[in-house]
Amino acid sequence: MTKPLLKSLLNDRLSASPESLIVRCLSERGVLSASQITRVTGLARSTVSTALAGLRKSGMVVETLASGDRARGIGRPAATLTLNPAAGTCVGIHLSLDEMRFVVADVSHSVIAEQTIPMGLDYQPRQAGQVAKSVITRCYEENGLPMAGLLGVGVSVSGPVSREGVVLRASIVPTWAGVNIRDVFGAALEQPIFADNESNCAAIAELMWGAAVGHDDFVLFKIDLGVGGAVVQQGRLVTGIAGGAGEFGHISIDPGGDLCRCGNRGCLELYASFVRPLEQISRIVRRPVTMDDVIEMAERGDVRALRMIEDTAEVAGRGLGVIGSVLNPPLIIIGGRMALAGDILLAPLVASYERHTLIKSRDIAPALRTRITVGKHTENDALLGAVGLVLRHNSRLQ
Amino acid sequence: MTKPLLKSLLNDRLSASPESLIVRCLSERGVLSASQITRVTGLARSTVSTALAGLRKSGMVVETLASGDRARGIGRPAATLTLNPAAGTCVGIHLSLDEMRFVVADVSHSVIAEQTIPMGLDYQPRQAGQVAKSVITRCYEENGLPMAGLLGVGVSVSGPVSREGVVLRASIVPTWAGVNIRDVFGAALEQPIFADNESNCAAIAELMWGAAVGHDDFVLFKIDLGVGGAVVQQGRLVTGIAGGAGEFGHISIDPGGDLCRCGNRGCLELYASFVRPLEQISRIVRRPVTMDDVIEMAERGDVRALRMIEDTAEVAGRGLGVIGSVLNPPLIIIGGRMALAGDILLAPLVASYERHTLIKSRDIAPALRTRITVGKHTENDALLGAVGLVLRHNSRLQ
Repeated sequence: MTKPLLKSLLNDRLSASPESLIVRCLSERGVLSASQITRVTGLARSTVSTALAGLRKSGMVVETLASGDRARGIGRPAATLTLNPAAGTCVGIHLSLDEMRFVVADVSHSVIAEQTIPMGLDYQPRQAGQVAKSVITRCYEENGLPMAGLLGVGVSVSGPVSREGVVLRASIVPTWAGVNIRDVFGAALEQPIFADNESNCAAIAELMWGAAVGHDDFVLFKIDLGVGGAVVQQGRLVTGIAGGAGEFGHISIDPGGDLCRCGNRGCLELYASFVRPLEQISRIVRRPVTMDDVIEMAERGDVRALRMIEDTAEVAGRGLGVIGSVLNPPLIIIGGRMALAGDILLAPLVASYERHTLIKSRDIAPALRTRITVGKHTENDALLGAVGLVLRHNSRLQ
Repeated sequence: MTKPLLKSLLNDRLSASPESLIVRCLSERGVLSASQITRVTGLARSTVSTALAGLRKSGMVVETLASGDRARGIGRPAATLTLNPAAGTCVGIHLSLDEMRFVVADVSHSVIAEQTIPMGLDYQPRQAGQVAKSVITRCYEENGLPMAGLLGVGVSVSGPVSREGVVLRASIVPTWAGVNIRDVFGAALEQPIFADNESNCAAIAELMWGAAVGHDDFVLFKIDLGVGGAVVQQGRLVTGIAGGAGEFGHISIDPGGDLCRCGNRGCLELYASFVRPLEQISRIVRRPVTMDDVIEMAERGDVRALRMIEDTAEVAGRGLGVIGSVLNPPLIIIGGRMALAGDILLAPLVASYERHTLIKSRDIAPALRTRITVGKHTENDALLGAVGLVLRHNSRLQ
């Protein structure tokens, strides 16, 4: 029974013992070779070697095949190690306007089960706690997983969350405004609870399993019905002192522009989200058009859909250009539903970024250029990231 | 003779021995108590205690008085430790348009000597190397310092510097464009050379000795004849992949604005630097007016100077508001010559930031508010920061 030991190694953030450093490192990164562990932890090679021998003997760490699905760690590991999948599991929950989504994963970063529960508009937090309890209990039973192996529950929220777990200014999930996530799910589930906003969770998903694997510094930029994002520096989310980092939708790009819901003028979200374009295109085609519809229309060559995506990409690139002049990141990952448009969005976006940021790609060596790409988990990044919160021991609510 | 040992402990960045971690930590932070060292290094208390005993026995680390000038470390240490001042010295050089400034400091972070050498406009790099050599040699002789104790030379440049040490787009020091700082000073001085742009150096000075002591995350925002800055996260400078982070002057705040020298439109520098305001006020008073003149006029209550500072602060606050929505930093330090105006600048700047950033101070608890303050070393921040490069082993040119 390795679980209590694993839990204590993962939870004791103050311990600098080689064993706990290695376990935390594998929990954060999934699959690593011994030499990658040496590099990431900064420990001596011999120390890593001794500690790994003990961890393997106790069954906490196992060897894994480098080929196939499991080889999603950094680079191409030779002999790769991971936490023993039997050593523990985590649950991720994503809360949105009218549904709750669940995922169960083990500590080797493999997804065991996923489920979506429709909740109806404006469901109550207390109800959500009860649903979570019954879904998780049933899911663990059906998959033969011991509840004792559950290490923690991560919650992704469509709105800002304070460090204490209170949902702030919840314009997307109004019934959650002022609610403490820890109170709701901690009481119902009796587990350690972790929570963060969906953009930060999305960044964690891309960092652990997606387009940012192996990158310590990047920016996630979400284009959807809103505009948002996240900043990762040195492998850690930049939250800001009040949780306000990565609020790219409220970069003002036009001092005399329209009034934004935030009270400022000319915010990027007004021009680079897909709310207004969808209104316009719906009016022209005389039926309600969704973002998925627009992508499909553009793929079929519809000039109106193409123009709409191009124009939005142009403005988004202007906002991204500002972020470039502040951070000059090595990597920008485009998330949000509009990222599913792929190159149709990316080509004009990259051109606009080049036009509006200070450091121009054409002036510098390829290795120094900011790379812009779409996310790998756009469809369920927030949900996967909620699991990531637990595995990385990020944003734990006390 | 502790110097060779100190040099090897400071330079071996891969070593995770307690001794080298403690020495690097003291070199970076100056004065610390044993318990602060334990917290910062993450080592066990007993490990720190054993390693410190050895370092004190060898004379590398000495106890210092907690009162007076030396107590400029983090917080208020009880029994404080520092590297032995006799164990080594560093030189900082600041290169500007028509002069070179020098400072010599010891590893306990005390300044031993300062000197300014007028060079005339457009002096040649080779000349600078020779001047540096003679100034440093003379200074070490006069102060009875052994040249063998020199650990390295840090160079602050009024322009961007690549990781390899090449001065890029040197609009302020044109004769340095394309020149490699390592080649110039390494050849003349035969010492390890460190180099970075003046804004990054200024941030390091505030971090080590100024308004950011004890802060791991902050933004430096410079208002001078140009606008620039630096971003510090987790105690480290964010340089960006091509050295382009912190280029706040080139945040575009007006898509239809005037053309900027960078090729973009509506850049913050056009509106928030003091070039245009000085032109205007000089025209009105019919004589050339400097930034120092304007501050003096404003302090005497001259309504034109006051209005000029207020208007510039308003625009600067708009740009800062954008930075706030990207990073939501705990602390913003205003640097550059205009910071010397103190509250005359700060009051309208803080008001404008509040107006233009997403997270409003009035909505949140005092502990979560971004604090905006002026720098403590505005007059010589770049020069002090050049010393800091060596002490922190930052931006070493290989």
